[in-house]
Amino acid sequence: MSETTPILRPRLPDNDVVFVVKNPHRPGMLGKLCTVIGEEGGLIGDTRAVFIGHDHIIREITVAVYDAPHLGAIERAIRERTQAEILEIKDVVFEQHREGKISVVRTKSATTVGELRNLYTPGVARVSKAIQHDPELAYKYTMLGNTIGIFTNGTRVLGLGDIGPLASLPVMEGKAMLYHQFVGLGAMPILVDTRDPEEFVTIVEKTSVGFAGVHLEDIRTPDCFYIEEMLINRLRKPVMHDDQHGTATVLLAAVINALKKVGRFGDDRLVFAQIGLGAAGYAIAKLLVEYGCHVVAFDPNPEAHERARKAGVEIVSFDDAVAADVVIATTGKVGLITRETVRPGQIIFALSNPVPEIFPEEALDAGAAFAADGKSVNNALAFPGLFKAAIETRADSITSAMKIAAAEAIAALAEPDELVPSPFNPAVHENVVARVRAVVHAAQNCTSTPNESSDHDPRL
Amino acid sequence: MSETTPILRPRLPDNDVVFVVKNPHRPGMLGKLCTVIGEEGGLIGDTRAVFIGHDHIIREITVAVYDAPHLGAIERAIRERTQAEILEIKDVVFEQHREGKISVVRTKSATTVGELRNLYTPGVARVSKAIQHDPELAYKYTMLGNTIGIFTNGTRVLGLGDIGPLASLPVMEGKAMLYHQFVGLGAMPILVDTRDPEEFVTIVEKTSVGFAGVHLEDIRTPDCFYIEEMLINRLRKPVMHDDQHGTATVLLAAVINALKKVGRFGDDRLVFAQIGLGAAGYAIAKLLVEYGCHVVAFDPNPEAHERARKAGVEIVSFDDAVAADVVIATTGKVGLITRETVRPGQIIFALSNPVPEIFPEEALDAGAAFAADGKSVNNALAFPGLFKAAIETRADSITSAMKIAAAEAIAALAEPDELVPSPFNPAVHENVVARVRAVVHAAQNCTSTPNESSDHDPRL
Repeated sequence: MSETTPILRPRLPDNDVVFVVKNPHRPGMLGKLCTVIGEEGGLIGDTRAVFIGHDHIIREITVAVYDAPHLGAIERAIRERTQAEILEIKDVVFEQHREGKISVVRTKSATTVGELRNLYTPGVARVSKAIQHDPELAYKYTMLGNTIGIFTNGTRVLGLGDIGPLASLPVMEGKAMLYHQFVGLGAMPILVDTRDPEEFVTIVEKTSVGFAGVHLEDIRTPDCFYIEEMLINRLRKPVMHDDQHGTATVLLAAVINALKKVGRFGDDRLVFAQIGLGAAGYAIAKLLVEYGCHVVAFDPNPEAHERARKAGVEIVSFDDAVAADVVIATTGKVGLITRETVRPGQIIFALSNPVPEIFPEEALDAGAAFAADGKSVNNALAFPGLFKAAIETRADSITSAMKIAAAEAIAALAEPDELVPSPFNPAVHENVVARVRAVVHAAQNCTSTPNESSDHDPRL
Repeated sequence: MSETTPILRPRLPDNDVVFVVKNPHRPGMLGKLCTVIGEEGGLIGDTRAVFIGHDHIIREITVAVYDAPHLGAIERAIRERTQAEILEIKDVVFEQHREGKISVVRTKSATTVGELRNLYTPGVARVSKAIQHDPELAYKYTMLGNTIGIFTNGTRVLGLGDIGPLASLPVMEGKAMLYHQFVGLGAMPILVDTRDPEEFVTIVEKTSVGFAGVHLEDIRTPDCFYIEEMLINRLRKPVMHDDQHGTATVLLAAVINALKKVGRFGDDRLVFAQIGLGAAGYAIAKLLVEYGCHVVAFDPNPEAHERARKAGVEIVSFDDAVAADVVIATTGKVGLITRETVRPGQIIFALSNPVPEIFPEEALDAGAAFAADGKSVNNALAFPGLFKAAIETRADSITSAMKIAAAEAIAALAEPDELVPSPFNPAVHENVVARVRAVVHAAQNCTSTPNESSDHDPRL
């Protein structure tokens, strides 16, 4: 192997399991147990005593493992080389997924038939008639104004590929959980069992009536481009394919902060190169153009070129792309970028997961001024606030100006030691909502009369 | 007018509004105010003091009115004939509908990026892979096992007719609220914007992946028959059009108790007549046949006859139908049944809302042994428990045996003074679930191996 082969460090084990073990309650037992687990490569998290008796103690020990054979090896080592008895091995991920992560619940209750007359028949008929007369009232008197549909056909889920809609449900529930946690929106996964883009568009169009926004998720390329474009054209409500624009928005925030860190923010001579024009790569290149950057791109697939050119991106060779001032790679190709191609002062985002195109430390060691991988680019920074603001303002689409405002809002809240802030910082989402809302309001005031919220005349 | 014209008593006002009024705080003021409201035909509910001062008192007075002109008349009377100042008129129904009646919420939370690793990526990928391998696991590790889709196109909503999907949302939310309140199921309204039955079927089929059951609601006839039949054929999960079978199930419970009240339960000479073969009427006739009854029916629309004949119902003339031992009318035709046609000892269910085909008191006065109108037949007695049991047992459809078991479960819990129990009696739903579950288990044990619940091997 030549010395240009990237140094692939082993990834850390990342599947948490919990060993429930019974040990004699004597000094040294836990040390021995932990040592054996460590010798087998298990990474210990919490240990918790769940029973302490005179003779023995029962502990739950959380251990991160690579996979089933690794777990088996640790299990054997504990049985053969310690006095501990394994009572149970719990899989934390599956335990935490029991019954799912979201639920549809009532926010009102009737406790008598009399009370039901206001919340259901006959009273509800008046609410229905009012909405029939003025559809805007649905935002006020139904769940609509607080509810997003997360639509997927499960054709490109995480790193798993085309696993179909049902198997994608846990991922959609995860997104929905974050919507609720970060901005209080309800989000309902709608699994659409078709691989035909045209049919997908029709189904989303016709079932989006009850949702204030359409979040598209985990749809394969190039279908995702066509589907999003059609739906944006047909629906007068926010539509966004998160794998494209959520990623692009957060990446733009990261780029802003990286440029500031190296003192090159505002330098209009910089050339940005996007390597890989899949869903995320295309959207990143497009958003950078819209942000005012000079953007070139490389992708071996000619089908992707026309789309990128239309967005104002110049298609170049790999060698030209990898030599740009700012290089962003979303290729899935481990080791695509080597020490030899890194130019002094370069800014490199190698975003492929779980292993990037070049490790940040390696890029920095080869002279890059800044380097990051995909770990810090978390979509959950962007999509909750973007949709929240879009719905609040009744924006009829999610524009580039809104994404850029969100990126700036995210970038502004990073701590000095962060590239982007933690999504668990509630100020981030508040800031995204506020900045995006301001952008929409400014656009509404420029181009039309203010979007007056209608109010129901109580006169029946 | 001949003396056979039914006596149409005025219905009571049933739109609750709240007058917020300021009165001098002196004896006699409230009496005067209430008298004036009563003179104008307003029906007073609660009165509540919200501010008591030295000089004046502010009260919220709930008044049921007929409609907007009636409200206006009461408002004018108060202004002109009392010393009360009206501060505000609140519409209780709309107030209680603010932001809707249900919401999608998270049932799990992550508070750090570390915790998110189990609930979202990378952990969630293992759950997705497990479900891809064994779809049954979705019942255990996602919201699926606790979630129903309520599908409608809004073509026949309450008494409002074809108001479209969006305007039907408050009604669907009402059903969903009751699902959650009565049996803890989450139910999500899915508004399908098409009037084409074939397209409706396709859309429900392809978006039902994420739901354990398909509740069809408020779809016009005859489309509802075709749609339900197609979906039952195509989906191996519970599908039920509630306007048909929910109504039929509760009506069967009412029939059982009515026959018991008059001592004719088990009398196999009885002839049952269904007048009107719309969605509810057809399903009632069919379920009575399946319960073992001799059922005849009348409907002026020949299109309805073939369907009913296939279900074992004999089509007869109106005169023959109205002379049956048990007459059930679902026609929407006020005064269709007259004193002259009532036979001594007859049992009459005149179910049309808000005004029945004959008032129960009138039928009894003319010699009927038992008479009821539609007020006591509330679908909410049946659908929550039916779906809960069907999902728990993984029944692949909702059979007649399950509906009959539900009807018997409902009938059994009526108090001596009730025809059917209150849906707010939690024992009703528990009893429906238990009886329906038993029927499914018995069928599963007869025809196949027990439906074993699969369990995930924690070995990653």
